[in-house]
Amino acid sequence: MFLVFLYSIYFFIFTTCYGVVQELFVDVPIDHFSLTRNNDTFKLRYLLTEDFYVKGGPMFFYCGNEADILTFYENTGFLIDIAPTFNALVVFAEHRYYGESLPFGAKSLLSPETLRYLTTSQALSDFVCLIDHLNREYYSTMITNDTYPVIAFGGSYGGMLAAWLRMKYPHMVLGAIASSAPLLQVNNLDLCQSFYNILTEIYENNGNCSYPVKISWEAIRNITKTSEGKKNVSEIFKLCRNLVNEADTNKFIDTLTDVYVNLAMLNYPYPTKFLSPLPANPVKMFCDKLRSFGLVKTSLDLLKAISSALEIATNYTGQVKCNNFETTPEQAVDYAWDFQACFELIMPMCSTKYHMFEPTQWNFTNYSNECTKKYNVQPYSFNEVLVEHGGKILKYASNIVFSNGLSDPWSSGGILQNVSNSVVAIVIPEAAHHYDLRGAHPVDSKYVVDARQFHVRQIKSWLNI
Amino acid sequence: MFLVFLYSIYFFIFTTCYGVVQELFVDVPIDHFSLTRNNDTFKLRYLLTEDFYVKGGPMFFYCGNEADILTFYENTGFLIDIAPTFNALVVFAEHRYYGESLPFGAKSLLSPETLRYLTTSQALSDFVCLIDHLNREYYSTMITNDTYPVIAFGGSYGGMLAAWLRMKYPHMVLGAIASSAPLLQVNNLDLCQSFYNILTEIYENNGNCSYPVKISWEAIRNITKTSEGKKNVSEIFKLCRNLVNEADTNKFIDTLTDVYVNLAMLNYPYPTKFLSPLPANPVKMFCDKLRSFGLVKTSLDLLKAISSALEIATNYTGQVKCNNFETTPEQAVDYAWDFQACFELIMPMCSTKYHMFEPTQWNFTNYSNECTKKYNVQPYSFNEVLVEHGGKILKYASNIVFSNGLSDPWSSGGILQNVSNSVVAIVIPEAAHHYDLRGAHPVDSKYVVDARQFHVRQIKSWLNI
Repeated sequence: MFLVFLYSIYFFIFTTCYGVVQELFVDVPIDHFSLTRNNDTFKLRYLLTEDFYVKGGPMFFYCGNEADILTFYENTGFLIDIAPTFNALVVFAEHRYYGESLPFGAKSLLSPETLRYLTTSQALSDFVCLIDHLNREYYSTMITNDTYPVIAFGGSYGGMLAAWLRMKYPHMVLGAIASSAPLLQVNNLDLCQSFYNILTEIYENNGNCSYPVKISWEAIRNITKTSEGKKNVSEIFKLCRNLVNEADTNKFIDTLTDVYVNLAMLNYPYPTKFLSPLPANPVKMFCDKLRSFGLVKTSLDLLKAISSALEIATNYTGQVKCNNFETTPEQAVDYAWDFQACFELIMPMCSTKYHMFEPTQWNFTNYSNECTKKYNVQPYSFNEVLVEHGGKILKYASNIVFSNGLSDPWSSGGILQNVSNSVVAIVIPEAAHHYDLRGAHPVDSKYVVDARQFHVRQIKSWLNI
Repeated sequence: MFLVFLYSIYFFIFTTCYGVVQELFVDVPIDHFSLTRNNDTFKLRYLLTEDFYVKGGPMFFYCGNEADILTFYENTGFLIDIAPTFNALVVFAEHRYYGESLPFGAKSLLSPETLRYLTTSQALSDFVCLIDHLNREYYSTMITNDTYPVIAFGGSYGGMLAAWLRMKYPHMVLGAIASSAPLLQVNNLDLCQSFYNILTEIYENNGNCSYPVKISWEAIRNITKTSEGKKNVSEIFKLCRNLVNEADTNKFIDTLTDVYVNLAMLNYPYPTKFLSPLPANPVKMFCDKLRSFGLVKTSLDLLKAISSALEIATNYTGQVKCNNFETTPEQAVDYAWDFQACFELIMPMCSTKYHMFEPTQWNFTNYSNECTKKYNVQPYSFNEVLVEHGGKILKYASNIVFSNGLSDPWSSGGILQNVSNSVVAIVIPEAAHHYDLRGAHPVDSKYVVDARQFHVRQIKSWLNI
């Protein structure tokens, strides 16, 4: 009633295999922490389904992370699967600066002035604002001195957001399922090598092909020393523009590394369409295909074999015309995420000669300089996000489940052990990145099914049902 | 080591009756929640004494509120009194926009653009930033996965800040002593009359003079109907400029009400110099003086008697030339505080015919309109501060003492009952506003002494000593 700051709502309704989903928008302040004029707001997008909701039921609130919220909706069936059991309202909130939730419209990523509100604190406050809005609509008759029955869910960075939402706003969120949230990786040089340790193991355990990848880096370095070589490599990997200097080669190697990372993260036992369409068991598929080329004779042949094998990731549909090797504002998701990884979510990673990647050291000054050059913004403190949200000190938190798949490279920074009776960890053998949040599938392992049952029991205990 | 955002420190050292106090400044971001350039910082002032600190001892951190930090330092002797027992480092942090902690220097209060960063979230983050800075200096050798031994203290609004600091940053602050923090008053129409209930009682119990005050309002209204009357009243109360219209009269009545409020808040049993110099038991002194004029014959005589009696508050030193009845940017503290009370810390108050003040209703729209007119900023949500900090839902918090004096009008919005084993309330009979935080004094009641001992025991239990 006193809400001067009116919520404008637009309805788009579409039907999915899960039922009727409403696409809605809520007006939220661009800056939650300073007093703004009325017009300094933007439309945060969210998806809502009332199909399973019965009055009095809880709200399942998915904390969107670095992509269009539809991507997460389509790959996080767990919430919908269990909604009928709980009579739950299901909400998928989009993260600011991704998808259609652009604070400054098409210009949002183009300048430091418009990018500066892309911070975890602002994103958490968007979610709180939306939860508050929905509470008024669905729980207006409840006693307001109690916490509303809102359960936060999130995977990966979204899992961090879900955990932080419960830690910082326990009066707004009753509990959180934080899947594959690499909280301990943030600003943690001690874990620098862990990610690549697990990643190399995954390629060893799923087709034993870490070696050809490992030697491919030197091949790329050698061949790209000449202009002709740069042109050749660009053609082999169908790059959208030719490599022209060493900086390009560095970017290309980083991009290729990310492809290997993604294959491992999304190494699910059935075909998926998450970040890109992928076959079942993509790491094994890549390794098998690579091996099918037999013993290669030259470095160029090795790169051709790798490029061809990688097409299961880079061109599974056969529709991709070329591959980008640099992130620009036009590649919105990568550009926005790199911004976050540059300034707030700094996760040091380094590889050694024992890994399948080029040995790299991690150095804050270099990292910071690169980021400043790219975005024209200076990071102001190394520890900021932990100081702000308390990432490592979890003993004062309650009602959080941290789950991690042990075949997920990001489990390197996950909470793998119980913190207390109320902040608990589960590990899921053989599971990839936030596998437990995916919808049920016939080939799910017993481990995954057990993990989901664990989540259900925890949520019931939080709701006292 | 990785702190790009360098802390510049200036030393001013002065000696007080409590020992050597350093006046220091730390660079903090003007905006903690959006990415800023390096130069978007300002110098937050704080006072520090190492006189009682022994390596390993805790940090006592006073959360400055709406005034120059020296004011609080000089009126919060409790921290210094108990520091030797704990070997504690004592820090008094100034609140942004008060004292010398001005984000935009002398211009800080002059426009909505410079005022907009005056919010509780930003102020809390200033404190966190300073604590982080001091932790690195004093506790650098500690295990960093644990909470540093920092105890927050605060009185009144500062008490809210201390409680919120523990609630939102339990990884930075181990516990909080929140004295006279009217958390429940915020955005709470249900408590609208409570403040004036207690206030009227105080004037009844300390000299029985609520009646003459009560009838003075009608006298003011009647006399100021004419220009001559406005001039007379302005002269009687030595106003800095004459009242010229009804809006002025309204402001004057508000200001006079504030004077009565302050007398009650600061109704200590010995002379003090807090917001202004005051005698011992000022409410009784005012009532006694008012009664000494005997039966007054006219309304004008009544106002003369009141003005004269009020001089114990308005001109105790005999040095005051005139009294302001409106807050302007030049009266920095009042102007900044009114801004906070307008947009974030909205505490509805209303009086009825049973109170010693003019009956007033409280209406959000009117309140908001007045605020918008004065500051050219629109409040965006009625519940924002509670949604952000969780003011009423305390069951997830831990290690907080809420203390309230029962003769403090602000106890109307205080937490007066234990919330849990770990969030506890104590009430102090006959005590005024955050009396327990003052230094020990020979005339302190047993109640106050007991309250302070309770605080000491709680702090020891938090520190495990």
